[in-house]
Amino acid sequence: MARKASLSGFPEWLPNERLVELHILDTLRRTFELHGFGNIETRAVETVGQLLRKGEIDKEVYGLSRLQGEDAERPGADPHGLALHFDLTVPFARYVVENAGHLAFPFRRYQIQKVWRGERPQDGRFREFTQADIDVVGDGELPFRYDVELALVIAEALAALPIGDFKVRVNNRKLAEGFYLGLGLQDTAGVLRSIDKLDKIGPAKVAALLRDELGATEDQAAAALALAAIRTEDTSFVERVRSLGVSHPLLEQGLDELAQVVAAAAERAPGRVVADLSIARGLDYYTGTVYETVLVGHEQLGSICSGGRYESLATKGNRTFPGVGLSIGVSRLVSRLLAEGTAVATRDVPTAVLVTLADDRSWSAAQDVAGLLRGRGIAVEVAAKAEKFGKQIKYADRRGIPFVWFTAPDGSHEVKDIRSGEQVSADPASWAPPAEDLVPRVVAGS
Amino acid sequence: MARKASLSGFPEWLPNERLVELHILDTLRRTFELHGFGNIETRAVETVGQLLRKGEIDKEVYGLSRLQGEDAERPGADPHGLALHFDLTVPFARYVVENAGHLAFPFRRYQIQKVWRGERPQDGRFREFTQADIDVVGDGELPFRYDVELALVIAEALAALPIGDFKVRVNNRKLAEGFYLGLGLQDTAGVLRSIDKLDKIGPAKVAALLRDELGATEDQAAAALALAAIRTEDTSFVERVRSLGVSHPLLEQGLDELAQVVAAAAERAPGRVVADLSIARGLDYYTGTVYETVLVGHEQLGSICSGGRYESLATKGNRTFPGVGLSIGVSRLVSRLLAEGTAVATRDVPTAVLVTLADDRSWSAAQDVAGLLRGRGIAVEVAAKAEKFGKQIKYADRRGIPFVWFTAPDGSHEVKDIRSGEQVSADPASWAPPAEDLVPRVVAGS
Repeated sequence: MARKASLSGFPEWLPNERLVELHILDTLRRTFELHGFGNIETRAVETVGQLLRKGEIDKEVYGLSRLQGEDAERPGADPHGLALHFDLTVPFARYVVENAGHLAFPFRRYQIQKVWRGERPQDGRFREFTQADIDVVGDGELPFRYDVELALVIAEALAALPIGDFKVRVNNRKLAEGFYLGLGLQDTAGVLRSIDKLDKIGPAKVAALLRDELGATEDQAAAALALAAIRTEDTSFVERVRSLGVSHPLLEQGLDELAQVVAAAAERAPGRVVADLSIARGLDYYTGTVYETVLVGHEQLGSICSGGRYESLATKGNRTFPGVGLSIGVSRLVSRLLAEGTAVATRDVPTAVLVTLADDRSWSAAQDVAGLLRGRGIAVEVAAKAEKFGKQIKYADRRGIPFVWFTAPDGSHEVKDIRSGEQVSADPASWAPPAEDLVPRVVAGS
Repeated sequence: MARKASLSGFPEWLPNERLVELHILDTLRRTFELHGFGNIETRAVETVGQLLRKGEIDKEVYGLSRLQGEDAERPGADPHGLALHFDLTVPFARYVVENAGHLAFPFRRYQIQKVWRGERPQDGRFREFTQADIDVVGDGELPFRYDVELALVIAEALAALPIGDFKVRVNNRKLAEGFYLGLGLQDTAGVLRSIDKLDKIGPAKVAALLRDELGATEDQAAAALALAAIRTEDTSFVERVRSLGVSHPLLEQGLDELAQVVAAAAERAPGRVVADLSIARGLDYYTGTVYETVLVGHEQLGSICSGGRYESLATKGNRTFPGVGLSIGVSRLVSRLLAEGTAVATRDVPTAVLVTLADDRSWSAAQDVAGLLRGRGIAVEVAAKAEKFGKQIKYADRRGIPFVWFTAPDGSHEVKDIRSGEQVSADPASWAPPAEDLVPRVVAGS
């Protein structure tokens, strides 16, 4: 971000920065649609009751109240009050339940929207930011194969972005929980929560937590940490887990599932996906595969894309809707790209050509030229006033428009590349700029 | 809208309805960019002080407060509190002032975002809805020609949408105000406000208002009403105004400006733009051209696209930023198209082809086929389980996927159009669906 946001935590981009963001969003959309994901949007607001159903996040929620309406009392007190959504998963769960009769399951959707969290802003954390989510949701059941597919889709989507190298780190809750149960640790959620702190507090303190808070023996703590230390780019993690000498049916199921994800990814997206048995994901609702993603060299930015398998996204009577999904933190990604100049737009404006005016009466003829060019997909502006040509060229230069068009009194046309100064005669019915100048492109920064 | 929104005033679309909305948004984006408008987004929130600067709309604003944060007191009391924007003009004005040093003027932008108003929901009026705005803003001055250009851009943008016939009704504040001043009516804003009620209360009651509240004589009231009755598709309105026998320098300027808009539109967008001297637009900040747009046959829906010229969008020290712009009510338009079935998507999902599985081991080979097809821009899903072919075909049918792909044990491929039942052999490296089946299209409803 070149400038400081005028409201802390609420970033806004300049037009050329927005082009980078749009490029990211367009690329994600294209990849998701090529894989059969359809788009939906949900409203920005949910009832407070809906948002706080899972508890524990109430501090982050922005409640709404009409400034002078009848419902002016604070909505915090009222579960029927309205508040801004803090992710796209809770609204999606509600949407699926409400519209189940109109959706074909397994339902595949992507959703790209703003979300809001009243957290203290810091690097990479905003109060308003854009998420891009994909999920597949089944009615009653959902084959495990979708866990494999989503790892491939997300690896393909991220590889198409100008973000450099990344690693999708995958783990499986069944694997971890089965391992802890096999070890004799019954509070598997407690162990996961402790393991989740590895990055922050280190293995010694995690071992202390496991001993002091969960009653683990020295050996149990050591085994849990040994599991979390396993990280492989292929299915060799299976043997490494087995060598720890723990067995449990749930562990076997988890090993098999994770091996399927990693094997497929090693073949179809080599180097992009790693088994990382330290990945815990804080939220409780994941029940199998869990994903996190880091930018190589920017690991301290945190995960830019996370998700997992949940056995029950939502329920409706005795129907349950299991799913698997991932969420990309678009704003976090874009703010980093912009801050580092990793990706830049080749120009600031869509306009490829400025049609100049020789005199004020020629505006209509200039519009004819513009219309012919636009009809072939070339973005054109027409000068608003017949200033001296030097001034009109300067306007194009200031806006970053690469070509300037001149029509002589005899009706002949010339077009000038104002970067090289080269000027050639041109026919508005057939001339086109070089392909690389047709629209602003997003390229690697220098 | 097929279904009732689960929260009144907050519409949500089914996936096939969203395709109609996306088509509208993509088409607008394309037209705006072809005319050199770049995209920006502003944050959803502004300070309460910023939003209420112009007064009079506070009842409609949603204030924000963190449900359990330190700032839990109601923001309504505090101009530094946060609230959701109710249009895109106020945030744009702030953005221009904040970023003036980084923008090239005249600055052309389009902006497509949600806005929120706590009004009572009714047909075509929502509490959350999408607006699509275009504006050109100058630094200090902005040539009048942009008023003409914007009428043409918006006529072209709307003509590209599947919305049937429409009329952009144009008037000019200088024309109306000059006329009233020439008549001897000094409170021109008061006259405009009364004229604005013509549609609702009729000419007799407007005349009464003019007499009783503004002290107009019978003749003055009759002349003001005669002006408002003028509506022409060409510049003949000039003669009709002159025949009313009123003269004033401001009237002359307004006549000249409006004639320029109407003459250019009659030539370049015939039948789309009319001079309508009853158009007043409620908001006070317009200073010249004003625009409104109705769908022919759906006039009672109200204006789907409105705007005008303002001499001072914003000020920064002694700099002023004049502009001209229009705002399209996308949600209002889409909800009407959906309710009437005017526009429909040819299918519900992006997917053109389902690659079936002969057995569970063939999933990877099926992904190879899918990858080849996606590489040529064809959206593909791969079946998740090797169910009986009948069940896999049924899945495609239920999702609305037109083509199903089969790979035989000998490695040969066939593709079946499940609508016609026709099945042909196909090469994954070269086969493509007919152009009309490549992506879901939006077509006129039956």
